[in-house]
Amino acid sequence: MSSHDAEVRRRDAADPLAPARARFRIPDGRIYLDGNSLGALPAEAGARMTAAIEREWGDGLVASWNDAGWYELPLALGDRVGGLVGAAAGQVAVCDTTTLNLFKALHAALGLRPERRVVVMEEADFPANLYIAEGVLGSAGRPLERRLVPRGEDPAGALDETVAVLALSHVNYRGGARHDLEALTRAAHQAGALAVWDLCHSAGALPVELDAAGADFAVGCTYKYLNGGPGAPAWIYAARRHLADARQPLTGWMGHGAPFEFEPGYRPDPGIRRFLCGTPHILSMRAAEAGLATFEGVSMREVEAKAASLTSLFIERVEDLAGADAPPLVSPRAPERRGAQVSFAHDDGYAVVQAMIRRGVVGDFRAPDVMRFGFAPLYLTHSDAARAAEVLVECLDPAVWRDPRHARHATVT
Amino acid sequence: MSSHDAEVRRRDAADPLAPARARFRIPDGRIYLDGNSLGALPAEAGARMTAAIEREWGDGLVASWNDAGWYELPLALGDRVGGLVGAAAGQVAVCDTTTLNLFKALHAALGLRPERRVVVMEEADFPANLYIAEGVLGSAGRPLERRLVPRGEDPAGALDETVAVLALSHVNYRGGARHDLEALTRAAHQAGALAVWDLCHSAGALPVELDAAGADFAVGCTYKYLNGGPGAPAWIYAARRHLADARQPLTGWMGHGAPFEFEPGYRPDPGIRRFLCGTPHILSMRAAEAGLATFEGVSMREVEAKAASLTSLFIERVEDLAGADAPPLVSPRAPERRGAQVSFAHDDGYAVVQAMIRRGVVGDFRAPDVMRFGFAPLYLTHSDAARAAEVLVECLDPAVWRDPRHARHATVT
Repeated sequence: MSSHDAEVRRRDAADPLAPARARFRIPDGRIYLDGNSLGALPAEAGARMTAAIEREWGDGLVASWNDAGWYELPLALGDRVGGLVGAAAGQVAVCDTTTLNLFKALHAALGLRPERRVVVMEEADFPANLYIAEGVLGSAGRPLERRLVPRGEDPAGALDETVAVLALSHVNYRGGARHDLEALTRAAHQAGALAVWDLCHSAGALPVELDAAGADFAVGCTYKYLNGGPGAPAWIYAARRHLADARQPLTGWMGHGAPFEFEPGYRPDPGIRRFLCGTPHILSMRAAEAGLATFEGVSMREVEAKAASLTSLFIERVEDLAGADAPPLVSPRAPERRGAQVSFAHDDGYAVVQAMIRRGVVGDFRAPDVMRFGFAPLYLTHSDAARAAEVLVECLDPAVWRDPRHARHATVT
Repeated sequence: MSSHDAEVRRRDAADPLAPARARFRIPDGRIYLDGNSLGALPAEAGARMTAAIEREWGDGLVASWNDAGWYELPLALGDRVGGLVGAAAGQVAVCDTTTLNLFKALHAALGLRPERRVVVMEEADFPANLYIAEGVLGSAGRPLERRLVPRGEDPAGALDETVAVLALSHVNYRGGARHDLEALTRAAHQAGALAVWDLCHSAGALPVELDAAGADFAVGCTYKYLNGGPGAPAWIYAARRHLADARQPLTGWMGHGAPFEFEPGYRPDPGIRRFLCGTPHILSMRAAEAGLATFEGVSMREVEAKAASLTSLFIERVEDLAGADAPPLVSPRAPERRGAQVSFAHDDGYAVVQAMIRRGVVGDFRAPDVMRFGFAPLYLTHSDAARAAEVLVECLDPAVWRDPRHARHATVT
């Protein structure tokens, strides 16, 4: 093992992102591999929020809508998200939730292909995306159908002249498989369809180039790899070429061209603001801003390289240590085919993950059998990945995950 | 004036809500009459938020969805809002924005009256409500029309056998006129329609009895009289008798009957949770919780009585002091016909309000000519109301509101 440990130390010493860990407050003794569900706390978030509460709300009161920039915050933060996903200014707004933004994006895309009737999605997509697509199809005012790509098949194969929209998650929530965003966008366009991307599991974990890829619409959250806090507002991207014609039914006053003129009829803002709806959740957005600040000066190419290094090390170590008992790898083996995440299958995965949590290594479980481990490159080290592999392999022993006494030795509940 | 001042002191001394002022942090020297736009800062909000950030997010991380009650927060806070608007438990959820919740409520109500085609609203309603109604009508999948009640007419007169939904604001945002919620709900039901109420300007300012009135659906914000912070999440009420059949197209995973089972199809929760959509904005909700806590032990009858006393005093003093120069009162003169708000008309109202703000009295202006003053009963005194009247009358002098030198004597910008 000593040669291995030297390798781990070498990689950590050479890590250009190592200083970013100090931007977070990680509880002592914890190896947090669930940043793909809720990102860790930025060290500055508390102070930023206190300033927003005491100075902006308490002292500034209603004048802060202008004086503290609250009114502009959805677009100001949107541009910062845009910088991380390859979107030039004026095409991203931070607002509402991922689900609501997907509702808007799908409606807008369908409205731009009025003569077509099919929305292609994956059977294996995050179920929330499938649910909201039901709501979209039922409220679009014309006969539409959802065409589900079976697990393991190429979504490009489902494209034809009836398809209005190809709506995909860039990185799958469950196994972490990554699509080729540029190639699938091109395939959608060649079929005359539009491409809508969910980047929840890629924004902040991988470089994304929405403009360069010619993507039409995209959505994502800010509470996973972007570290924006529990239930932080989400974001929506609409390519500039679509802004003037993109319509969606959540016609709220913050999307109006002149919200404070109090005109009797709805008239959408000419720009990305037309995707706003109600009053923005300012305090949650101030936390999201602290999360985005953890990426200041960070190269997304370095983030991608470190994610590949951490996840590859974790896989190697688990397979080396467990040998013939290693659980089947659910995630793609080639790092360029996966996100910053590793999933292994195990019939008793829930119990194994709980045993790991009791030892301070926090992953999660997705039914029926997926143990899921996210490797947020800004605050994890190769030592963390190596130690997490050891703990996973220890916990594969049924004497460990079955034994109720281990619950009493818990360090983390 | 001395008899007047004695009267002011007498009323403040007898005010049963006087101790509630200590629950807020009001900037020194400010008389804040814009709590009908953004409520003042609860003194405890900062500490509660710090605990949510440092302990729940920082230490608890993803486990806080269960351990800190995040997952239950929309319904837990909903029940607390319910206590202030006369709704028994299980009928209110705190989530999203007022506009989004009105979208859901109107869709749900229309779905319960499939054979009818008209939505009655008021021309004078808050424009955001008219805007989102356009989005609802365009996404309901059947021919519908909006029937606008002209200004000054009784909405009951617009009811007939074609009407599916009567959707009204209980208290008008502009002039503060208050509808008889119970009588209009009854009139809607007699016509076979459902009643949807916007309580943004009444929740926390007046007693409301949704269950007793037989209301069908209601929505409101938490950032005005409920003091929940800038852009705090809104709430939605659905009468228990409608829960099983109420459907709306924002079919997000948090409204699913089993969000973490990851079933392929959407199946709404049997209860009020079906009105949730995406991941709740936890941090903004923790601030909303601090706002709701300012109402602990408070009688809404006492709130209503104090609102009547403050607003009546303000009107009397303005009219006494200004005499023939008093601006026309926009709000109803009878306190039981208005909310906790007083509006006066003035062609140069914007400049007058700005001059008042420079003297520390914060109201606001709504185009074209309404000066609007909210009297949040929990943190304002009769002395505040009397002083505000003096300042308003001073600022009616064109030499004051026209004179740019006054800007240089500003105490509040």
